[in-house]
Amino acid sequence: MADNKKMVEAITSMEDDFAQWYTDVVKKAELASYSGVRGCMIVRPYGTALWENIRNDLDSRFKALGHENIMMPMFIPESLLQREKDHVEGFAPEVAWVTHGGDEKLQERLCVRPTSETVFCEHYADIIHSYRDLPKLYNQWCSVVRWEKTTRPFLRTMEFYWQEGHTMHETAEEALEETERMLNVYADFCEESLAIPVVKGRKTDKEKFAGAEATYTIEAMMHDGKALQSGTSHYFGDGFARAFDIQFTDRNNQLQYPHQTSWGMSTRIIGAIIMTHGDDNGLVLPPAVAPVQLVILPIAQHKPGVLDKARELADRLQAVARVKVDDSDNSAGWKFAEYEMKGVPLRLEIGPRDIENNQCVIVRRDNREKTVVSLDELETKIPELLKAVHDGLYEKALARRESMTYSATTMDELKDTADNKPGLIKAMWCGDLECEMKLKEVAGVTSRCMPFEQEEIADTCVCCGKPAKKMVVWGKAY
Amino acid sequence: MADNKKMVEAITSMEDDFAQWYTDVVKKAELASYSGVRGCMIVRPYGTALWENIRNDLDSRFKALGHENIMMPMFIPESLLQREKDHVEGFAPEVAWVTHGGDEKLQERLCVRPTSETVFCEHYADIIHSYRDLPKLYNQWCSVVRWEKTTRPFLRTMEFYWQEGHTMHETAEEALEETERMLNVYADFCEESLAIPVVKGRKTDKEKFAGAEATYTIEAMMHDGKALQSGTSHYFGDGFARAFDIQFTDRNNQLQYPHQTSWGMSTRIIGAIIMTHGDDNGLVLPPAVAPVQLVILPIAQHKPGVLDKARELADRLQAVARVKVDDSDNSAGWKFAEYEMKGVPLRLEIGPRDIENNQCVIVRRDNREKTVVSLDELETKIPELLKAVHDGLYEKALARRESMTYSATTMDELKDTADNKPGLIKAMWCGDLECEMKLKEVAGVTSRCMPFEQEEIADTCVCCGKPAKKMVVWGKAY
Repeated sequence: MADNKKMVEAITSMEDDFAQWYTDVVKKAELASYSGVRGCMIVRPYGTALWENIRNDLDSRFKALGHENIMMPMFIPESLLQREKDHVEGFAPEVAWVTHGGDEKLQERLCVRPTSETVFCEHYADIIHSYRDLPKLYNQWCSVVRWEKTTRPFLRTMEFYWQEGHTMHETAEEALEETERMLNVYADFCEESLAIPVVKGRKTDKEKFAGAEATYTIEAMMHDGKALQSGTSHYFGDGFARAFDIQFTDRNNQLQYPHQTSWGMSTRIIGAIIMTHGDDNGLVLPPAVAPVQLVILPIAQHKPGVLDKARELADRLQAVARVKVDDSDNSAGWKFAEYEMKGVPLRLEIGPRDIENNQCVIVRRDNREKTVVSLDELETKIPELLKAVHDGLYEKALARRESMTYSATTMDELKDTADNKPGLIKAMWCGDLECEMKLKEVAGVTSRCMPFEQEEIADTCVCCGKPAKKMVVWGKAY
Repeated sequence: MADNKKMVEAITSMEDDFAQWYTDVVKKAELASYSGVRGCMIVRPYGTALWENIRNDLDSRFKALGHENIMMPMFIPESLLQREKDHVEGFAPEVAWVTHGGDEKLQERLCVRPTSETVFCEHYADIIHSYRDLPKLYNQWCSVVRWEKTTRPFLRTMEFYWQEGHTMHETAEEALEETERMLNVYADFCEESLAIPVVKGRKTDKEKFAGAEATYTIEAMMHDGKALQSGTSHYFGDGFARAFDIQFTDRNNQLQYPHQTSWGMSTRIIGAIIMTHGDDNGLVLPPAVAPVQLVILPIAQHKPGVLDKARELADRLQAVARVKVDDSDNSAGWKFAEYEMKGVPLRLEIGPRDIENNQCVIVRRDNREKTVVSLDELETKIPELLKAVHDGLYEKALARRESMTYSATTMDELKDTADNKPGLIKAMWCGDLECEMKLKEVAGVTSRCMPFEQEEIADTCVCCGKPAKKMVVWGKAY
């Protein structure tokens, strides 16, 4: 029988094989593993703790804006899914169908929700009658299922976890405001809590959500230059309200259709964290959502007083950070590697000599910078260092994005950049679908978004030369 | 067009029709409503907020004992469900089957999890190799599906929400300790947070979980004298471990099968809260989990200074309770009825004369007792009153249970009690299945549990007269 003493194996380097590096990190950091069902992942305790921190952070941002959580059924009858034409066309090909309950064949098939606009609309038709019932600002945390052909943990799985906000408003204007407000919540969350800079913008019609009038998105750039759509917010107008016969009496006693939004962020965002901040030693977690923010490692822990001191510090520091002490009998070298792999933002080392000098060494995960800190100053120093890690991660990610964002005014230039330089490309667009398709065909890039912050790179479309309507950010995407 | 001014309609009284009273409370308190899928409920925002408080309370109790959350797939392949014989027999007749993904027929059917022992075991086989990997103390929060014939909101729904703990241990002794520990966590939670007294005990073999060696339960008594199984904890021995080939190298370098437990509490507990504490005015919520603990109602709110004072108090009192101020233009009478219906533990009334006298009136939901409180003392008085509501609810429920618990030493006595007196019956049992079946047939009662606190009511079985082995609590159940 093999001794089970743990070893930290090296992972594939990013340079050698980025996709394999990603898979290695997911596995070795114990974020997720595959289950027996194709494309369904097991989110392991460390990944679940990370998701819980993401969820709690987002949830309090939603609630602060007056949103309420609700729990809707996971099943949608086929007839309900079909009620809105564009929506069913978009989703029917990729849903899981329940056809039997026990031994009985169902009279009508049920799909496992791929998204819940239809069930929300059915409920809204029940409960919205007057302008006094508006707005309705609902959100739910759940998992949804989409029958994907190829899957990768967090990035694209058949079952994934998310929140989906669904709101109803008296006017188009209010609904549009909500759509933008929630996109801003996502962008703020990414920047403030995940240290991920994002580009905010609107999707082209080709890329928008099935059934939406407009889809807004935040796009982040990964280490390899590819874009990752990290959160979306949709404006539906009154299209679903008409399809589901949702009407209310307005302030002038007239019947009106309400205006609707939906918005979602999913476990995909964990993929964004990995591929934005990770390095060849493993995961690097932004402090705000890290399950463990500070790991305390006793050095020469067999020496008298060391373990006691380490535990005493852990107790004391719970007040300022999420702390773990590793007093296992694994070697110090193993522990260093293990907590680097797991991306713990700060490592605190304390040994006999440190105790003598009333100090310890704190090492930052992001840049391995060491600081000697007096034990009396930990309560102020640790929050400062956590903030420094956050800022360092954000600045590094922003600098990388800036250095890997190009612009192009001709197709040749665009194709040359797309072929040779990983990253994003800004280029003008006339607004025609054909040009969008041609860029995909010729240069292999898709439109990521039409950024809210527009620049005048040229007057004419990069593809057809007709007058340009919008600057679009193009790129390869996850 | 009707004006949408809200009205609080009366509900059916408990006396007239307990089942209809229950349904009315669920609907009028806006806890849940039915969806378009048979047996699947929509848990509305007020019900969801209640469930979130229950979840957060339980979750912190689990985590304090070292349990970690994990997220498992919702689908189980048919072959995996069939791996443990007793388990599949128990669950296969009541699962929902997914047979198609998009347009494709699946090679193997997947069921939507009715419970997750099988997927946990498959994962444990992957990650448990040595005694160093034990114990594994995992829990997940999710929804599960069981294809029920008849359903009622919270009490029995096709999809319901729960947590399921699944743990693995080196020895049978440790696993048995865990099984009891978690039952105690449920009992403590019911008593400390829900003000619901429970009977702790073991299920008979007939009533135990499919595949378990032993099932422990907590049973609560509802207003109508029926029992409600409120949480269960199962000991599996190494049966699943053998079926799923989970082995570890022990401290003596020998291969062993680990010993397993699982335990769960579900949205059913919301049914228990309704039917334990509710009254003819609606819901009565235990303060620890109430979404709103204190509602502030401004009286004569058009008078200058009233609304400002109410809002100022709300801001101030956030620190000691979950507070809501209702400054809508509904009448005071409507508001009184509305927050009684919603079971808010305390109502604070403040009007112009109160403000002059630097005081307010606080009314308890449980007994309508009014207290005049100085505005300077609210920070100490409100927590005291919340505790008084909790204690009052607990004492009332305990007194009811005691007054409605009987004992019987003969079948005639037992049948007479079962026919004429709603409640629970203590009686001795020989341990034979036939006697258990006969009690069901003759008196319409099932064994709720064999309480840990045994009493010697008689020497002989109430049914067959053979020597008695256990005192059993019998009753009608939800």
